[in-house]
Amino acid sequence: MKVYFDNAATTAMDDRVIEAMLPFMRNHYGNPSSVHSHGREVRSAIEKSRKKVAELLNTTPSEIFFTSGGTEADNTALVCGIETHGIKHAISSPIEHHAVLHTLEVCEQKGHIQLSMLDVNDKGELDLNQLETLLKANPNSLISLMHANNEIGNLNDLNRIGTLAREYGAFFHSDTVQTMGHYVHDLKNLPVDAIVAGGHKFHGPKGSGFLYVRKDKKIHPFIHGGAQERNMRGGTENVIGIIGIAKALEIAYEYMSSHEVHVKALKKHFIEKLKADIPGVEFNGLSEELDRSLYTVLNVSLPPSEANAGMLLFNLDLAGISASGGSACSSGATVGSHVLRALNHNPERDSVRFSFSRFNTIEEVDYTVGKLKELYAVEV
Amino acid sequence: MKVYFDNAATTAMDDRVIEAMLPFMRNHYGNPSSVHSHGREVRSAIEKSRKKVAELLNTTPSEIFFTSGGTEADNTALVCGIETHGIKHAISSPIEHHAVLHTLEVCEQKGHIQLSMLDVNDKGELDLNQLETLLKANPNSLISLMHANNEIGNLNDLNRIGTLAREYGAFFHSDTVQTMGHYVHDLKNLPVDAIVAGGHKFHGPKGSGFLYVRKDKKIHPFIHGGAQERNMRGGTENVIGIIGIAKALEIAYEYMSSHEVHVKALKKHFIEKLKADIPGVEFNGLSEELDRSLYTVLNVSLPPSEANAGMLLFNLDLAGISASGGSACSSGATVGSHVLRALNHNPERDSVRFSFSRFNTIEEVDYTVGKLKELYAVEV
Repeated sequence: MKVYFDNAATTAMDDRVIEAMLPFMRNHYGNPSSVHSHGREVRSAIEKSRKKVAELLNTTPSEIFFTSGGTEADNTALVCGIETHGIKHAISSPIEHHAVLHTLEVCEQKGHIQLSMLDVNDKGELDLNQLETLLKANPNSLISLMHANNEIGNLNDLNRIGTLAREYGAFFHSDTVQTMGHYVHDLKNLPVDAIVAGGHKFHGPKGSGFLYVRKDKKIHPFIHGGAQERNMRGGTENVIGIIGIAKALEIAYEYMSSHEVHVKALKKHFIEKLKADIPGVEFNGLSEELDRSLYTVLNVSLPPSEANAGMLLFNLDLAGISASGGSACSSGATVGSHVLRALNHNPERDSVRFSFSRFNTIEEVDYTVGKLKELYAVEV
Repeated sequence: MKVYFDNAATTAMDDRVIEAMLPFMRNHYGNPSSVHSHGREVRSAIEKSRKKVAELLNTTPSEIFFTSGGTEADNTALVCGIETHGIKHAISSPIEHHAVLHTLEVCEQKGHIQLSMLDVNDKGELDLNQLETLLKANPNSLISLMHANNEIGNLNDLNRIGTLAREYGAFFHSDTVQTMGHYVHDLKNLPVDAIVAGGHKFHGPKGSGFLYVRKDKKIHPFIHGGAQERNMRGGTENVIGIIGIAKALEIAYEYMSSHEVHVKALKKHFIEKLKADIPGVEFNGLSEELDRSLYTVLNVSLPPSEANAGMLLFNLDLAGISASGGSACSSGATVGSHVLRALNHNPERDSVRFSFSRFNTIEEVDYTVGKLKELYAVEV
């Protein structure tokens, strides 16, 4: 049996997404910036995609900018948000994705900002009182706090953070890569200034993404060149990526509640079975709490085991199960997870992130827990 | 008849490129940074693509970084070349692509560099004596001069410019977007420090590109995040883009000489027929000189005509002919060409860039010249 439980790293493309992209590989190849017929038909498709994304997120097309992915979108929001709005102070947290952390660290090293990091407790919960204190002390700050953590699944309350941001005049960016296409983002009512998406996290293509920037918080471009994306991003558009991400988001919204029900049931079953079968199993962050964490992510902390120490992912892989030790975004990384470190996770316990999609089944969960039971039975 | 003569804007994808990409849309969807089997098979395909590109360009895989296109690659080379190497002075020319010009202008506005622009004559030729004078006066400069101009097709002598760059210790970046896949780049012997490619200019996918940076001139990343591309570019890789651009370059190199012969013959025929049929026709830049300009580009300057003034592209489009007034990269641009302005082109004459690929035919040339003859016969 082959089991793919690494959907927070990337997802399989939906066949309907591939079908939507193919005509723009085979037939409609014009440059969307060209004014002739070959260009116009492609321009029209791109703008329809932008309109679709805007509609789904309850905002306007002029606030949606297509990018090469979530990381570029995060970089754009942060680097250009800071530059454009003359921001000198930023607030983030140690469990953000590297696309946010490294970008802000570089801004700090260059002397553009002072960077304040919120404390997190051992469950990965942010100290929002500290956020308010920092906002009071530093007017015109930038806040970058993710919607949901990609490793432990903790969901942050964007409404509460955004309300504080507005009260103190801060620019609020949220890395929404893990929630886009899995939760509803109603941008008319959500007090955020910038959010991002990567298409491959919800069955769209890798190399596609978008950035939303609220109209009254406009920022400069990050990539300079032609006048594409309303002068916000130079470079010939990744047409198939744009078609693909819009189609994937459309499908995601159409089936969101049924998929949530299906995936949440898998996660619940997974938790129950692990508790029954693996004595001493624990769950990192809030990932055991179904309503306070991503339904797509379960981060499991296993009891210390000499036979599996440092080999757990390898052993799962041998059994045909693809899972992750944390973010996939650090290639060949043996450096361990900065998120689990921030949570003071016991390094003698091995952790695995299992992450799900609507393509997963209850049989795959049973198979996986069975394998874990075998692996951890050795020492009993 | 539908004629696509805008191949310098973008090209149709080769069927073999699409075939190479499809398995990575349908079956192999792992994240290349994941260490499990789903990830490893994709990592292997990406690294094979990098090796293929490096082999074709006679360089090493560790010097090739995949990007979202030529524009991002140009931005990376310029912004990060300047930052990493503490460069305070840059030299470019007024007929560079906006991906270079606007990026350097922003670096100048931020006070990072002083920017010197080489003079160009009415044929678009650079003053290389002036280049040497500037290099003498400004040690540790960055030079950004394109291999071939995207509008008028002028080819620059990269060997001569690069030899000067080495003599005076400059960082030499060249925007090679228009020559990649159309000419041989032998990086063991070409004295450049950074060159770039956009896959869609040689029958690969839009949204794909790469940056070459010479080993001993390493630069910092432009997009921060995960450790992808050997820590040079954060963000999950555009896998199908990478597979596609490598396949497109492989095909381009395999058939390069026969395609050059075919396309050059089209261009030669086009020139001869225009001269025979349109009294007063001229050619912008060096595009009439077959060995000093891109074989893929012919920039035609037509005699003043009241019937066509400002309507020429529109009239061609009505006749089914897709061509361009200059760069396609300025969407809906009615601003005219900065390149033709730099050449003091008579604004009463309409100009059209016809650009070719191996998919074009002699019949298309004849049809197009026939239409131009009709359009310009009105006033005779």
